[in-house]
Amino acid sequence: MPHVTFRPSGTIVEVPAFSPLLDAAKKAGISVEIPCGGNGVCGKCLIKIESGVVDFQDNGSLPKSMLDEGYVLICKTNVMEDDVFVHAVTDLSKEKGKFSHLSEDMLHVDVSLLPTPKDFDPIAKQTILSVSKPVMGDGLSDYDRFKKAVLNKLGGTEIDIPVSMLKVLPEVLRGDNDDVTLTYCIHGNMIKIVCIKPASTIDVQFGIAVDIGTTTIAVQLVSMTKGDIVSSKTNYNAQIECGLDVISRINYARKPEKLEELRMKVLGSINRLIKELVNENKVDPKTIYNASLAGNTTMIHLLLGIPPEYIRLEPYTPAVYQVPVYKASEIGIDIAINAPIYIAPSVGSYLGGDITSGILCTSLATASEEVCLFIDIGTNGEIVLGNNEFLIGCACSAGPAFEGGSIENGMRASQGAIERVEVNKETGIATYYTIGNKGPLGICGSGMISLIASLLTTGWIDAAGKLKRNVSCKAIDQRERNAKYIIAPAQECPNGKDIFISEADIDNLIRAKAAIFSACAVMLESIEMNFSDLSKIYIAGGFGRYLDVEKSITIGLIPDLPADKYVFIGNSSMIGAYMTLHSKSHRRKELELSQKITYLDLSTEAGYMDQYTGALFLPHTDSRLFPSVKIG
Amino acid sequence: MPHVTFRPSGTIVEVPAFSPLLDAAKKAGISVEIPCGGNGVCGKCLIKIESGVVDFQDNGSLPKSMLDEGYVLICKTNVMEDDVFVHAVTDLSKEKGKFSHLSEDMLHVDVSLLPTPKDFDPIAKQTILSVSKPVMGDGLSDYDRFKKAVLNKLGGTEIDIPVSMLKVLPEVLRGDNDDVTLTYCIHGNMIKIVCIKPASTIDVQFGIAVDIGTTTIAVQLVSMTKGDIVSSKTNYNAQIECGLDVISRINYARKPEKLEELRMKVLGSINRLIKELVNENKVDPKTIYNASLAGNTTMIHLLLGIPPEYIRLEPYTPAVYQVPVYKASEIGIDIAINAPIYIAPSVGSYLGGDITSGILCTSLATASEEVCLFIDIGTNGEIVLGNNEFLIGCACSAGPAFEGGSIENGMRASQGAIERVEVNKETGIATYYTIGNKGPLGICGSGMISLIASLLTTGWIDAAGKLKRNVSCKAIDQRERNAKYIIAPAQECPNGKDIFISEADIDNLIRAKAAIFSACAVMLESIEMNFSDLSKIYIAGGFGRYLDVEKSITIGLIPDLPADKYVFIGNSSMIGAYMTLHSKSHRRKELELSQKITYLDLSTEAGYMDQYTGALFLPHTDSRLFPSVKIG
Repeated sequence: MPHVTFRPSGTIVEVPAFSPLLDAAKKAGISVEIPCGGNGVCGKCLIKIESGVVDFQDNGSLPKSMLDEGYVLICKTNVMEDDVFVHAVTDLSKEKGKFSHLSEDMLHVDVSLLPTPKDFDPIAKQTILSVSKPVMGDGLSDYDRFKKAVLNKLGGTEIDIPVSMLKVLPEVLRGDNDDVTLTYCIHGNMIKIVCIKPASTIDVQFGIAVDIGTTTIAVQLVSMTKGDIVSSKTNYNAQIECGLDVISRINYARKPEKLEELRMKVLGSINRLIKELVNENKVDPKTIYNASLAGNTTMIHLLLGIPPEYIRLEPYTPAVYQVPVYKASEIGIDIAINAPIYIAPSVGSYLGGDITSGILCTSLATASEEVCLFIDIGTNGEIVLGNNEFLIGCACSAGPAFEGGSIENGMRASQGAIERVEVNKETGIATYYTIGNKGPLGICGSGMISLIASLLTTGWIDAAGKLKRNVSCKAIDQRERNAKYIIAPAQECPNGKDIFISEADIDNLIRAKAAIFSACAVMLESIEMNFSDLSKIYIAGGFGRYLDVEKSITIGLIPDLPADKYVFIGNSSMIGAYMTLHSKSHRRKELELSQKITYLDLSTEAGYMDQYTGALFLPHTDSRLFPSVKIG
Repeated sequence: MPHVTFRPSGTIVEVPAFSPLLDAAKKAGISVEIPCGGNGVCGKCLIKIESGVVDFQDNGSLPKSMLDEGYVLICKTNVMEDDVFVHAVTDLSKEKGKFSHLSEDMLHVDVSLLPTPKDFDPIAKQTILSVSKPVMGDGLSDYDRFKKAVLNKLGGTEIDIPVSMLKVLPEVLRGDNDDVTLTYCIHGNMIKIVCIKPASTIDVQFGIAVDIGTTTIAVQLVSMTKGDIVSSKTNYNAQIECGLDVISRINYARKPEKLEELRMKVLGSINRLIKELVNENKVDPKTIYNASLAGNTTMIHLLLGIPPEYIRLEPYTPAVYQVPVYKASEIGIDIAINAPIYIAPSVGSYLGGDITSGILCTSLATASEEVCLFIDIGTNGEIVLGNNEFLIGCACSAGPAFEGGSIENGMRASQGAIERVEVNKETGIATYYTIGNKGPLGICGSGMISLIASLLTTGWIDAAGKLKRNVSCKAIDQRERNAKYIIAPAQECPNGKDIFISEADIDNLIRAKAAIFSACAVMLESIEMNFSDLSKIYIAGGFGRYLDVEKSITIGLIPDLPADKYVFIGNSSMIGAYMTLHSKSHRRKELELSQKITYLDLSTEAGYMDQYTGALFLPHTDSRLFPSVKIG
């Protein structure tokens, strides 16, 4: 009989093959709300199948993107003959049946922060216009009649029509009837023409939300009419060939041709993801009229081809914080050529639009008085602290370790990545779990945290991150100066090579976590608060949602606070970009946030180096900061 | 002793070698005003040396462009040992010593119509801006400080900065001092950034005026700081490979790839002329911040890549009359990428911005009550009639004959072109004169008019344009069905081939002149006026200034009116473009004119075909219309 494991509780039950999954849940003592009576329509019993094959009687209530990620409704699912791992979707109750347009990521964000249909106000909008046919002797050109119709319908006093649209005007205005589908932006008294098409052709409009990370780029294809996320894609930023962190990119960009190389690389990465998305979903990229981008200050400079040099030279002044809205073709993004590109505003040289975008996903963007901390863990660690009264932010360089960079067997959190490791205290041998239950290809950020926490609590590494050498263990390879810990031996790996972590890798991880923890500590110190004063800690970042709180505390990455104070909001930069793609009020809010945040430059902050040095141990030199951590 | 021939009178005098040219003029009975006492400063005694070498003691009072074209001041010129042909510059007295910034063309336009230094207001202007250096912790990006400085200095509430200028901003704002040279356009409350450069670098700014003809393209390089025309270049429009007149171009452009071919061809022609001009004058094309273009409606559609098809299909509605100001890079003109491109507004499908531009050079653009006629003779003939109260305009298809097209030995009015022919009444043999006194390469428009007039008055052709066949004449080759008249026999021609005009060529000329004359007649008829009611007739067109009134009347091209009613204003489209390049009031005036002109569509005008048929004779079927013409 198959076993069903319910996470996060870990309860395992044995049930007959082909029995309802609902029965298994009951047997495990898990209460499942099914207000629709098990008809698969309310969506309240959404769960995620992490591994194992089940039979889900899909009635169209879930979007394909969610099905692809393993989501099913318990009430319509039967267990088959496989063992199954099920993960609860904890915040589901908040969704009130509206989940169908959301991605997995967004399930972790308070729905009250997301735009609703009434907020729908993208930069480029569509309308149907009636333009009379040409008449002999009226002295009006096509453009004259068009302009009159636009200003009559939309108000404004001026019109800005790109040459590309003048070119199509004669054909468009001579359709079967007087209808013209107009895509436009309003800018003060100016109506900017984005696209014109003959007849009344409003059907589906698409938009893209883009998160431009130093290491990883993510693109979401969004149906603007429904608000659905059609599909998402993620890949490395091709710039990583030219340097792993923003400083090395800035150095690389010193010569104009190298800057241009970086610009083309990031554009290439974005455009390849767009191409895959439109091809797979059979969307014409020319019908993508809106885009919202979020990225750190350096990434945005490189995307626009602006020399980023002065970001790292005193007085650390970037060329631009709030980038004007440019056309897709001006920047080089392969969507409708006149589509307006919104770019999230930056706050400081190392506190970019990815953070203002991310803050939109937290109570820091609300009227709440509770003081909260926002930590975005990526190649750079960015931290924002505050409430409705004040916001301060800073950035630290964590390096790419958490995204699999600078780690010999590191990889992104994709299929085949080791995402969880348990080390046997006695034998020192690892039990590991991979994403998608595939043969292991490498280890991702959450896997490394899990591994190091486990090595530390079982005593196989010490507080300095050095492997135990005085006890023989076949998982520890001491042949080189840097000892290695073998997680998966060669014979278990599709590549036929050991998957290991070296002491140098562990050192990289320690420096990364120390940078982030000490930045948080300095921030609180600057306003004379303690970690215990915080109401909530939002953890963002590409791998944020896979992060295990307990293990992250164990290694000293995040403060030792009760797990229920932590909220994982995943790639909040991307979710923020989704919000600003749709809603003018979210764009306005984001701009307000960017102007409200006081930027703290850690490089000039007394005390940061002391804090950092203190954090270069597992979990910390000052063990009183981590009372709950018991090391082996 | 050398002979000096004074044109247009034709008086020939013999004078000692090395004697003052002023003496020759006196001997010829020509009165020369020298108010400055012969010091070469007032410019009143300007003349043009058509052939022969003279000694001009240049004291810098004439621009190089004029010297290159053969202009000298009589008072500072000695005859050498050569025979000399001198041409009077009749309208010189109007110049009041200000000629030094004008081209040959402009000498024929009433100076009161030209912009003066106080009118100087191009679309893109320059100023020096002070932008403070970056300061640590002020929370201002380079763009923030720049924007503030721009709005403080120039007013306005918004700024429009192209990505290309954001890219250079960091470097520009970190110069030795706070000065920045800003080139900008004002558009309502919006300051549009054209170019930014470090320090105070205002020195010379350049602009270009462009006349885009169906057959010929002319580009003028203008110093915007001084108003000087630095140099001009003319060449064929490369589109002529794809059709000789606008109708054939429109037909050619039916497929998108052919339209694109035409667009690239005209752009190529313009950009090649620009390149030659900037190379010869050592000007960086990136410092050309202003451009003013004039062309007929079809040419402008093709330049912008707009399908021109509907210009020739009922109800004859073009895509656009008044083209918005686009950036050079949007259109593809190789000057500063953000330079604004002004395009003269059109009136009708066949009455384009070349005509509104040309009208600026006439009293039709003034408050004068006198009714005047404007005739632009080109591939299309365009005619405007009116005064300060009304303006009506029309167009007719003359074909390229007057520009040397569709004529077997036709050529443009350039070096080596036969520009004047006298036929001996007895022998039928031609005496011909070429531009630059070079060996004959072909015959240009003025040459053909001169030739046909002479053939007609000497009786070697009849009113139908047929050559006399019953008398033996070695200049007439009757071997083919179409007889040919040999102007220059092979042995006199550098190409070693006869230069001739065939009866088919004469027929083309007759159709061309008939189209223009009958259009003028229909226009006057429409307002119930006679030719004798006209105060002035302005003749414009690339060859207008070489036109001989008497001979043009002889062939029936223009009405039989006293020569002093005719004003030759040359390439007025280009002169108008020069005016609008400099002056906002001229741009405003041009727009007013374009809106004031009532467009008469000859194709729907009853009576036009009758008039045309009547004009298909030399000079006309109704000889009462040409009382002064005596045919042989």
